[in-house]
Amino acid sequence: MACELCEGDGGEVLWRDRQCRVIRVNESGYPGFCRAIWNTHVREMTDLDASERTRFMHVVFAVESALRELLRPDKINLASLGNATPHLHWHVIPRFRGDPHFPNPIWGAQLREPDALPADVAALQQALAERLS
Amino acid sequence: MACELCEGDGGEVLWRDRQCRVIRVNESGYPGFCRAIWNTHVREMTDLDASERTRFMHVVFAVESALRELLRPDKINLASLGNATPHLHWHVIPRFRGDPHFPNPIWGAQLREPDALPADVAALQQALAERLS
Repeated sequence: MACELCEGDGGEVLWRDRQCRVIRVNESGYPGFCRAIWNTHVREMTDLDASERTRFMHVVFAVESALRELLRPDKINLASLGNATPHLHWHVIPRFRGDPHFPNPIWGAQLREPDALPADVAALQQALAERLS
Repeated sequence: MACELCEGDGGEVLWRDRQCRVIRVNESGYPGFCRAIWNTHVREMTDLDASERTRFMHVVFAVESALRELLRPDKINLASLGNATPHLHWHVIPRFRGDPHFPNPIWGAQLREPDALPADVAALQQALAERLS
């Protein structure tokens, strides 16, 4: 079966190495929303070996750290779901009290209209490079 | 402000140590749904030090591993959200094609009625003890 995360990057790449990549998610009202995507087609975290798991979580937490420094969100949401796309990836979502769904998960009921907030992509790339290079 | 995860266990405890605990979530249609909860009131994963983060994820992945062995789910969903309860906790949710929301996240639109599936709590406690003790 075709997998969109095997066939393409899945978004604008902010950082990558041999094992995984971080992309920017272009979603209205969520300017800092990123995904960390394992490069090979693996289904679950426990399909990785221990060192790969540690490395992938290190990348996820580097994204969290970069987003906290740059955006000062009210909360960070982390999620590995993949029911529709079972290729291992983490959503890293900075959440704000005024965002479209807060305090609901972004998959829950929308409570307000999104603001047209720009993402500072260059700053995010720089903050990731500092943490991961 | 009162925190429900400081004031109580947050559910039936399946396993615990000094740093964290695993509880069973009593939610209709999701018999193996567990939460891993950090014992002290910490907001984000990047508020933990590196060894605490590694330990907490080790516990989360032990829950995932136990649930995969016992239930053979179609997918595992992992999420640290905490918008309403900003006390660090992970949802570990075995997902099945016939569950109430699949392929939606459990916070999305419900697509079918939940079955009254029993949870084998003793087997889950045993599988966690094997992995974490």
